[in-house]
Amino acid sequence: MMKLYYAPNTIAIAPALLLNEGGVHYEAVRLDFPSGEQRSPAYHAINPKGRVPAITTPEGILTEAGAILEYLAATAVPGFVPSDPLHAARMREVMYYLASTMHPNHAHGARGSRWANEAASLADMKAKVPETMTASTAYIEDLMVGPCLFGDAPTLADLYLYVVSCWLEADGVDLAQFPKMRAFREVMGGRASVQKARSEGMLT
Amino acid sequence: MMKLYYAPNTIAIAPALLLNEGGVHYEAVRLDFPSGEQRSPAYHAINPKGRVPAITTPEGILTEAGAILEYLAATAVPGFVPSDPLHAARMREVMYYLASTMHPNHAHGARGSRWANEAASLADMKAKVPETMTASTAYIEDLMVGPCLFGDAPTLADLYLYVVSCWLEADGVDLAQFPKMRAFREVMGGRASVQKARSEGMLT
Repeated sequence: MMKLYYAPNTIAIAPALLLNEGGVHYEAVRLDFPSGEQRSPAYHAINPKGRVPAITTPEGILTEAGAILEYLAATAVPGFVPSDPLHAARMREVMYYLASTMHPNHAHGARGSRWANEAASLADMKAKVPETMTASTAYIEDLMVGPCLFGDAPTLADLYLYVVSCWLEADGVDLAQFPKMRAFREVMGGRASVQKARSEGMLT
Repeated sequence: MMKLYYAPNTIAIAPALLLNEGGVHYEAVRLDFPSGEQRSPAYHAINPKGRVPAITTPEGILTEAGAILEYLAATAVPGFVPSDPLHAARMREVMYYLASTMHPNHAHGARGSRWANEAASLADMKAKVPETMTASTAYIEDLMVGPCLFGDAPTLADLYLYVVSCWLEADGVDLAQFPKMRAFREVMGGRASVQKARSEGMLT
């Protein structure tokens, strides 16, 4: 059985949602981020990057949320990647945007020490998070068809985005400006996959 | 004919390398980053994110290097995505790492103003780039089979990595520590696709 290493409310929940969508049984291994378990030697042996998610596959450990989602879609949970190459590319365009821009914007709130050392720098970074996350939300809002990113059916990008969207209030984004994002969260939040993750304490 | 919007030495060169590998004719549109052309209204209409790459497809504009590489691989340049799902996932694991971690590490050198406002913060970020880029290079070095990431044949991830690898000296990484990375650059640098990009001033 696959093991998924996660911490609550992190991007590791995106693959959990996909596994739930497919009814795939897996073992969820919770890391205690407050005590720094992700930096322990035991977890370092699993993922030397000290991040989540990581999953065990029959052929070894795989990391990076986007890569894990694609792998699970190809091997275990069909129906979440458009068959048309351009539609698939549009899905990946959002996934890469979330991975390369919106998630790093968010990370400057609590994880600024990845990129700077001085307390004043970390405070400066943290203060800018509402601005960068609002800009990222506006970009997503503009491209969203509704209620999901590309219409009625969720793709891998919607599962990825749903987890990111749960960070917005804490990051100082005023959701009143973003009706499509609010509707997206309503619709996604009603899915059994999300409700299962909430009932298990993966999303709080 | 597709148009690829780029600036020299940026990650926009990765899709140019793939197009060169496939012998695909395309129009390269160079943006003048020093004058801020990427933030002009004309380019904003093409990519509201103000970044490169962007390409025109028959069905509209597509952005994000990873998504563009996948799209071109699916439609125009076969042979750069492993057919086995786990091997493809390993390729994407590196691509997402480059997009989400190594490229942002690099960007804190010249583009710290994305995430902080004070001059002291930007200096602090810039000073940490050699440390973060060395750690990223070490992570890649450890997983690299050699001479390419997964053996003899380059994948999309190798084209992506090659562009990133051209930033290492300027980012303060001591290549003497990383023999596999040096060999990778030698092998990739000898490919006709890279030499064409260099002759066109895309890599300097």
